[in-house]
Amino acid sequence: MTVRIAVIGAGIMGADHARIVAEDLPGATLQVVCDMDEARARAIAGRYDAEAATAPEAVIARTDVDAVIVASPDSTHAPLSLACIRAGKKVMCEKPLSQSSGECREVMQAEAASGTRQIMLGFMRRYDPAYRQMRAALTAGTIGRPLMMHNWHRNGSTPSADFTGAMAITNSAPHEFDILRYMLGCEPVSITATQPMRSDDKVAPVVMVLQTVDGQLVTVEVNNNAAYGYDVKAELVGETGTIATNHVSYTRMDKGATQSLGHDADWRDRYAEAYRQQNKAFVRWVQGGGCPELAASAWDGYAAAVIAECGVKALESGSRQDITLIPRPAFYAGATGKVA
Amino acid sequence: MTVRIAVIGAGIMGADHARIVAEDLPGATLQVVCDMDEARARAIAGRYDAEAATAPEAVIARTDVDAVIVASPDSTHAPLSLACIRAGKKVMCEKPLSQSSGECREVMQAEAASGTRQIMLGFMRRYDPAYRQMRAALTAGTIGRPLMMHNWHRNGSTPSADFTGAMAITNSAPHEFDILRYMLGCEPVSITATQPMRSDDKVAPVVMVLQTVDGQLVTVEVNNNAAYGYDVKAELVGETGTIATNHVSYTRMDKGATQSLGHDADWRDRYAEAYRQQNKAFVRWVQGGGCPELAASAWDGYAAAVIAECGVKALESGSRQDITLIPRPAFYAGATGKVA
Amino acid sequence: MTVRIAVIGAGIMGADHARIVAEDLPGATLQVVCDMDEARARAIAGRYDAEAATAPEAVIARTDVDAVIVASPDSTHAPLSLACIRAGKKVMCEKPLSQSSGECREVMQAEAASGTRQIMLGFMRRYDPAYRQMRAALTAGTIGRPLMMHNWHRNGSTPSADFTGAMAITNSAPHEFDILRYMLGCEPVSITATQPMRSDDKVAPVVMVLQTVDGQLVTVEVNNNAAYGYDVKAELVGETGTIATNHVSYTRMDKGATQSLGHDADWRDRYAEAYRQQNKAFVRWVQGGGCPELAASAWDGYAAAVIAECGVKALESGSRQDITLIPRPAFYAGATGKVA
Amino acid sequence: MTVRIAVIGAGIMGADHARIVAEDLPGATLQVVCDMDEARARAIAGRYDAEAATAPEAVIARTDVDAVIVASPDSTHAPLSLACIRAGKKVMCEKPLSQSSGECREVMQAEAASGTRQIMLGFMRRYDPAYRQMRAALTAGTIGRPLMMHNWHRNGSTPSADFTGAMAITNSAPHEFDILRYMLGCEPVSITATQPMRSDDKVAPVVMVLQTVDGQLVTVEVNNNAAYGYDVKAELVGETGTIATNHVSYTRMDKGATQSLGHDADWRDRYAEAYRQQNKAFVRWVQGGGCPELAASAWDGYAAAVIAECGVKALESGSRQDITLIPRPAFYAGATGKVA
Ligand SMILES: [Mg+2]
Ligand SMILES: [Mg+2]
Ligand SMILES: [Mg+2]
Ligand SMILES: [Mg+2]
Repeated sequence: MTVRIAVIGAGIMGADHARIVAEDLPGATLQVVCDMDEARARAIAGRYDAEAATAPEAVIARTDVDAVIVASPDSTHAPLSLACIRAGKKVMCEKPLSQSSGECREVMQAEAASGTRQIMLGFMRRYDPAYRQMRAALTAGTIGRPLMMHNWHRNGSTPSADFTGAMAITNSAPHEFDILRYMLGCEPVSITATQPMRSDDKVAPVVMVLQTVDGQLVTVEVNNNAAYGYDVKAELVGETGTIATNHVSYTRMDKGATQSLGHDADWRDRYAEAYRQQNKAFVRWVQGGGCPELAASAWDGYAAAVIAECGVKALESGSRQDITLIPRPAFYAGATGKVA
Repeated sequence: MTVRIAVIGAGIMGADHARIVAEDLPGATLQVVCDMDEARARAIAGRYDAEAATAPEAVIARTDVDAVIVASPDSTHAPLSLACIRAGKKVMCEKPLSQSSGECREVMQAEAASGTRQIMLGFMRRYDPAYRQMRAALTAGTIGRPLMMHNWHRNGSTPSADFTGAMAITNSAPHEFDILRYMLGCEPVSITATQPMRSDDKVAPVVMVLQTVDGQLVTVEVNNNAAYGYDVKAELVGETGTIATNHVSYTRMDKGATQSLGHDADWRDRYAEAYRQQNKAFVRWVQGGGCPELAASAWDGYAAAVIAECGVKALESGSRQDITLIPRPAFYAGATGKVA
Repeated sequence: MTVRIAVIGAGIMGADHARIVAEDLPGATLQVVCDMDEARARAIAGRYDAEAATAPEAVIARTDVDAVIVASPDSTHAPLSLACIRAGKKVMCEKPLSQSSGECREVMQAEAASGTRQIMLGFMRRYDPAYRQMRAALTAGTIGRPLMMHNWHRNGSTPSADFTGAMAITNSAPHEFDILRYMLGCEPVSITATQPMRSDDKVAPVVMVLQTVDGQLVTVEVNNNAAYGYDVKAELVGETGTIATNHVSYTRMDKGATQSLGHDADWRDRYAEAYRQQNKAFVRWVQGGGCPELAASAWDGYAAAVIAECGVKALESGSRQDITLIPRPAFYAGATGKVA
Repeated sequence: MTVRIAVIGAGIMGADHARIVAEDLPGATLQVVCDMDEARARAIAGRYDAEAATAPEAVIARTDVDAVIVASPDSTHAPLSLACIRAGKKVMCEKPLSQSSGECREVMQAEAASGTRQIMLGFMRRYDPAYRQMRAALTAGTIGRPLMMHNWHRNGSTPSADFTGAMAITNSAPHEFDILRYMLGCEPVSITATQPMRSDDKVAPVVMVLQTVDGQLVTVEVNNNAAYGYDVKAELVGETGTIATNHVSYTRMDKGATQSLGHDADWRDRYAEAYRQQNKAFVRWVQGGGCPELAASAWDGYAAAVIAECGVKALESGSRQDITLIPRPAFYAGATGKVA
């Protein structure tokens, strides 16, 4: 069965998903590209002989659409996921599920009420080879019990000039919140957030320290104006050793008194393989395979939203905030395994 | 149009091609897996709901087969490629086209007589990101005119105990011969080959030095018993700088007083992306796209065979051998571009 | 003039200083090695044809001793530095000057009353090539205004089983406190300190976050049971780029499916060149050169002690502590330059 | 006993040796700096309160000179070494001992006739931490029996415009010839030498392949116009693993879409520690210690000269040259140990 996919949203991520579906996803075909901006939808759809559309709910309801990828603006993620649930169609929703943890709970309730898992959340790092090797080393006991995780999230520059520290926490940091939960297999219980001062009006980095219920410490630096390029790094410190992401560059150059490696331009280069594997897992699921083991769920989207809300409060108040999640519904049991 | 592919040969490489076609090639489907050993054919075919067969020529002739991937033993590559030409079906033939340059010429003549390019040769390194970046740096003038290219080809151990230095040249080194021709955009004119002595009965490394018609020097080390893992490296030395393959490891580990990166187990890990891109290019070609710009042709297979023949003579005689190619047929014009 | 040096303390650091003075310090000679434990003093002194002694104050007073290196237990640093001031002899005192900021102030007052600088404090990192390059890049403007500094201080294991988090702050972290002040050219104004939980009874890492008066953020991880080796790292994040310590290993090895670099056994290997340069600077000063520009002073020892005191309070209270220093005495003006 | 040293030659290397003796060599003092060019001698001598002189033989004969460092033009190395032997003074002679193997034999005969070893040759790489670790790994059996050694010797640019391939072999490559002999513990028996063609009139690289009496292969690239900086690299390939020099840079920088390490400006930076350790070993020897185990002797100078002579013939003739050394005199027994 060839899965006919609708991509909703034709911005940077939507265009990238459309390309992956059209060119790199065996078993899938790009059926529709939908965007409020018709010209944008047409531009992307035309590239791959797909249809263009502007009304997302109508697209979701189409009988010739088997599954949906949501890559529209963040505020539409939850409503469109709900529409997919109502239509009984599986959806790969870009993060965040919602910036509101309350709205995430509504989506979880609807999904649970439907009786079956239908949402996969686009925390693609879980499919990245580096994080997978880190997780494998952990579960194999190679570095002992985890004690700390350090994370760096650096962009060359912000997409808009009015980006704020709070936005760094709600837009960029959720990737860190998800991966620390996934990696450590437990939930954070507190968070602090602080910013240095820049000499210009660009948003300064945000430095967060989280504690987990298992007593681990996690540091997160989100630096949206790192200037030098896109660079995401992580180190997992265990009781007997550490494992860290290594800078991947296919070549190195000796020139002008330096030896240099290249930096990725942005996350699409850095995570190209992760996006591809994630979307492959989505297609297999739609084709009838089991719910992908690695994939993030609505529950993970809820947890990331709560942590981000607490992070913003920590940044604004200047004091440590407790993080309290609702009990994990049985419906979402079993995904994030704890290292013994 | 979905391209129905027959994979001929169900050994290590055939199994890998079958997997790529079945799981990672949009626009293609695995129709048949053919191997003299019926059980082997069934084992791989069964994995992907394809048919199993044992008679390659019959498979090539099937009307439900649109294109062929040849990954059977080396001695069958040329006969099967000729069968594909006769059947008017495009073929992605694993290297070498033939270990006999004379047989390569027969294939070229048949292909030329057919009036159209039908053979793509599996020198997959041309699709590897590292070599592509090296080539791009060269054509961009970043390191100046190329002066030297150094190449290392290391395997953990030989597939069989009776591997010889001559086999290192005819089986392993063709990848180096092709990539140096591709990278430098010109032909080698001489070759020397020497071996150190091992203390055991394993095959020793072979060290070759080649000169090109443009006056470049190329060194090649083929070490089939490197013991530590699979490791292929190259450095291109230009008049104003150098560019080299960088060791790619997604993670690094600190443990037991060392900081370590992993080595690949074999070429399938190292070149996974190259194989995927190569086969995608093949499918696009079968679907009606132009002959893939990067891909190696029968001419390239012929050139590699001649160089290997000269390399074996150089090793056996202990003296430098001239390399003489027939004039490049117009039919194969234009593929390997020279850097100005 | 050959400087006759007395080394007080014949423990690990004292033995190392004795060796440097005896074998690697032109213009200096090892006159006396003094330790409460006479056998220890004799053992080290005998190695280099120096005299052994057990009474430090008497040694300091000797007319054939021109200068003193104090490497005895931490609690004796301040009293012995005071004795040197009284004797009018310059002293290179191992860190800390004192764990009590009050006692540091007494030393400062005595030094100021003597009218001349006599104390150089053994914060040897200021002489380390890596930190010097980082400082040079900063002052050259290569990475823009500094925003953050990340620091990792990892030991294979603690010297004693009863090492505590507070001791990590008072014994190990002062090196970090000094180098951040030196690097950023300004004082920290607040500190938080947190620990993850280990599964055994070894001391867990301490993670600190400091803010400086210029609005920079500094993170410090002190991990005294890192298990894998001695590893000190730092990264300076500027507004236009970053500069970090690079792992220095003279060789790398390919073996057993990994490529590995070595870790230093301890700080004496890691900082061998820094210790040598620091002690050379000390000798030149004693010989009549000006007060070494890079060297840490009693003021720097005081600052490190105050920060450590606040760090311990932060760890014990679980809340951020303000750091308040007395105004910098004019006597100590000028050493730590601010980057414009 | 303080060793009073005369440095003969006040060019780049002489100035560097004068600095090391004056500032970094405990137990030694810089007595005289001698150069045909009086102004040059005065400039360097004046820097360190040493005397200036212009007549080397007279300097060697001075009663207030205990030992000599020869860093004058290459053609004077042998005559001045002979003068030191006659004067009964130990000499650390910069490489080469002579470019003529015959002249090297005369020096060996004179030294042997004197009945005692007096010459240490400045093949400082033997004191370099990287090569020492490589040798240690070899003798420890960590990489198995050595099979190959690869060497790269790259300078940013040649000192003079009329530098030739033959000069690359006689002036630059002797360092490689010595280190391969030292590392492998046996002698080379043949050599080939080839050059690529440059597009300008600068000297092109020379690529050499040597075979040793124990059946090892050694490749050497000497690239005197590498453009990007000074870069010397080596890899030792054993039967069970490899060990290679690692690029040492104290810091790395992220800036402008690249991550970069620095290259050394020239050999004085790269080998600063090797020069210091070599000269320390020389001083200890003069003070009465045994002949330094690591140091190169006149015999090693002779061997390097023979290999270079054969290398030049190989380059000029285009054919492999046998290398034949005289039997090693008993007087020089024991220095280069073979790995079992
Ligand atoms: Mg997004
Ligand atoms: Mg093959
Ligand atoms: Mg100490
Ligand atoms: Mg020289």
